[in-house]
Amino acid sequence: MTGNTIQLDNNGNLKHFLTTEGLSQSLLQKILDHAESFATVGDRPVKKVPLLRGKTIANLFFEPSTRTRTTFELAAKRLSADILNLNISTSATSKGESLSDTLQTLEAMHCDMFVVRHANSGAAHYIATQVAPHISVINAGDGRHAHPTQAMLDMFTIRRHKKEFENLRVAIVGDVLHSRVARSEIHALNTLGVLETRIVAPHTLIPKEVESLGVHVHHDMDEGLEGVDVVMMLRLQRERMRGALLPSEFEYFQRYGLTGKRLEKAKPDAIVMHPGPINRGVEIDSSVADSERSVILQQVSHGIAVRMAVMAMTMGRSGDDMEENE
Amino acid sequence: MTGNTIQLDNNGNLKHFLTTEGLSQSLLQKILDHAESFATVGDRPVKKVPLLRGKTIANLFFEPSTRTRTTFELAAKRLSADILNLNISTSATSKGESLSDTLQTLEAMHCDMFVVRHANSGAAHYIATQVAPHISVINAGDGRHAHPTQAMLDMFTIRRHKKEFENLRVAIVGDVLHSRVARSEIHALNTLGVLETRIVAPHTLIPKEVESLGVHVHHDMDEGLEGVDVVMMLRLQRERMRGALLPSEFEYFQRYGLTGKRLEKAKPDAIVMHPGPINRGVEIDSSVADSERSVILQQVSHGIAVRMAVMAMTMGRSGDDMEENE
Amino acid sequence: MTGNTIQLDNNGNLKHFLTTEGLSQSLLQKILDHAESFATVGDRPVKKVPLLRGKTIANLFFEPSTRTRTTFELAAKRLSADILNLNISTSATSKGESLSDTLQTLEAMHCDMFVVRHANSGAAHYIATQVAPHISVINAGDGRHAHPTQAMLDMFTIRRHKKEFENLRVAIVGDVLHSRVARSEIHALNTLGVLETRIVAPHTLIPKEVESLGVHVHHDMDEGLEGVDVVMMLRLQRERMRGALLPSEFEYFQRYGLTGKRLEKAKPDAIVMHPGPINRGVEIDSSVADSERSVILQQVSHGIAVRMAVMAMTMGRSGDDMEENE
Repeated sequence: MTGNTIQLDNNGNLKHFLTTEGLSQSLLQKILDHAESFATVGDRPVKKVPLLRGKTIANLFFEPSTRTRTTFELAAKRLSADILNLNISTSATSKGESLSDTLQTLEAMHCDMFVVRHANSGAAHYIATQVAPHISVINAGDGRHAHPTQAMLDMFTIRRHKKEFENLRVAIVGDVLHSRVARSEIHALNTLGVLETRIVAPHTLIPKEVESLGVHVHHDMDEGLEGVDVVMMLRLQRERMRGALLPSEFEYFQRYGLTGKRLEKAKPDAIVMHPGPINRGVEIDSSVADSERSVILQQVSHGIAVRMAVMAMTMGRSGDDMEENE
Repeated sequence: MTGNTIQLDNNGNLKHFLTTEGLSQSLLQKILDHAESFATVGDRPVKKVPLLRGKTIANLFFEPSTRTRTTFELAAKRLSADILNLNISTSATSKGESLSDTLQTLEAMHCDMFVVRHANSGAAHYIATQVAPHISVINAGDGRHAHPTQAMLDMFTIRRHKKEFENLRVAIVGDVLHSRVARSEIHALNTLGVLETRIVAPHTLIPKEVESLGVHVHHDMDEGLEGVDVVMMLRLQRERMRGALLPSEFEYFQRYGLTGKRLEKAKPDAIVMHPGPINRGVEIDSSVADSERSVILQQVSHGIAVRMAVMAMTMGRSGDDMEENE
Repeated sequence: MTGNTIQLDNNGNLKHFLTTEGLSQSLLQKILDHAESFATVGDRPVKKVPLLRGKTIANLFFEPSTRTRTTFELAAKRLSADILNLNISTSATSKGESLSDTLQTLEAMHCDMFVVRHANSGAAHYIATQVAPHISVINAGDGRHAHPTQAMLDMFTIRRHKKEFENLRVAIVGDVLHSRVARSEIHALNTLGVLETRIVAPHTLIPKEVESLGVHVHHDMDEGLEGVDVVMMLRLQRERMRGALLPSEFEYFQRYGLTGKRLEKAKPDAIVMHPGPINRGVEIDSSVADSERSVILQQVSHGIAVRMAVMAMTMGRSGDDMEENE
């Protein structure tokens, strides 16, 4: 499945946001530009714009995630939308209702947008094929497939610090195998035209097809970080790991944990990113996580702005009229 | 208990909405008329009216129900009220507080309305007798007794399709014994003056007193559907059934499942209704549920409008001034 | 730790509200004065003021409490703030994230206020030392330490009934050992200058240091109630008690339960208070709880007003401009 056919409407505007794969560079830049206009809302005394007032957004979380749900909830509230939090696993489906019937029921309640988190790859895409034409679907993470708003908040953070993408070398470090974030980042970095994207991980945590995505694979972290502008650490998805892919967290940290010493291999102005929540002492040393090089908390702030931008864009609203009073 | 004595204020206006039993035809029609004015709100770009702005509505769910709770939550938000979702079973009462103390505490917090779902028949009625004069109580389903907003959204859906009630033959099919929906529908259909109401169900799923309500009982489904204008399917309350009232779901479907072939017995323009969530292949065949005859999803949409109407009416607000800007 | 150093900003205004200990009489009176201006909001047709519109308040409940969470949620909504309810024990920390990282993440989402309930004494104070300068922290109960908004709603209720504090004799009856409410009340009563504060409880339910707080200890309830103006009953924290501090609830009631007969020892116009939820027949007889002397439900109403006042004050907003239209 390519991103364009289902994600864009007939005028080439964003209708759903399911994956960064297949979207054009100009569209990704447009998302970042819109997010720029929302980034200041969080600093205002009144952190609200009326762009989606009277719209109903349903957070459909088939897999629990307080942090991601909270960022979408805040983004929706700051756009003045009404939001429903639905933990699907514990409600309708336990009465035997099918997913399709649940979706149609929410449509009949005049929901305008579904924010979907699901343990199965492709779930948000499938839902987007099922919904009525006026409904937008945003993928908040599906299986190992994609987490496009996370990738775009990372791109936003990179652009804020590095201005242009074209001369950048970026290293993505850690559990790529289980990471929907890594997949979405790789597609976005490719499209935005970085000079080089590297994957740094042990053999057991790298998916087979990864080199076909145009990345360079490194198993040695010092080599992988050599001369990079951006270090994107991944979370060790301990709760997702089955079996013995890793010897131990201690050994993992010895080989792939980001320490101040290892970071010296990167460029002097390299930034350090992490999608959070961080496992201190597992993927990253506290001294690095809390250093000036770390932009981890900026990523969180940018996450609200990027989600506001994507929510507004898929609903056909730009940030241009957001100064209007509520 | 008769509906009028407690449900109406001294001027004959709706104060609580506990049961369809005992309310006058003109009052039921008034609810439907008000719902008509709210039915378009869901299609507006801004799905909100300021009728209950600054009011506090508490969803008191002593029995969990995501779907019903969500419809009341949406209705409240679209009326601009503030809503509290309280799952009572897991909170105050576990600290040993009495129901009466919980209610008085919520009153002292200046709640204006309680939406009550409870496993015991009569619970909402009891609560209405306990609350302060300014508080309205809406029954969102009590035991096997009543579910009046469900019944009224069904009446609304029938009126939209059939205009008048007086010449209609209506068949209610399925588990009448456990169904608060069926009871509320029978009272509403009687009051609205339909020509005939039929109950179609096996002996074991029909309550003893049902013929005293003026309905005709059929155990054979083909006979029961013969010439009807409206087929109202009930949900098989599998989670409520104790013991062996039914041989098997398969056998039930053989005798009482609504198939395309069975529906041929009804009038050619008969509509098919179901309160949801549907058990496909148990009460109803998928081809019927998804056919043009099915108005099941319209029922969901109408549910929001009817609940908005009832909430506004019990709070003394009509839909007339709802065009006012927020 | 003294209250002033961290609770006040450089201009002596309330920045956090963590404990009643160490705050000046004039500041406590100022809180009560502000609460007075909010007390009428609950009686208005539109129970909302726009003072905190566009602010984001996070309810951080590390220990569950529906009642307290609900009052803060209502206070926030009536101030027009956006509120996030976060049950921390079941979310981020289960993924191994540290408290400090959770707080920094919420800050990065541009939260303006944390309302904190925690089982550990000192938790809210610790959090206040960690947060960014623009964030206010309100203690909604920490271990056995403090519950300052409860104490201030009690002071508000006393002032409404007794006007001045200086000639009052107040008896606090019950499980002082486990009661953060009692500690916060004692500090507030001392600062507001009551004539005498008495503690009435069995030896096993009185903390060792209590007489250093300037209270008189009574083990006989009739003696303890003799001539008092205010009887403040405490809740028997059955869920907090470990081991055999009490012979039985029945015996407890025999010795320390508030009955009509015992209340005769107090002044004829003495008021009876309880933080709720009440254990009828354990701490208090129903006839007393429901009598005219009881101001228990007024305490609940005042709780919303006092919380609105404290939330507005810590955010630098007074109630003076609250008539402004939203």
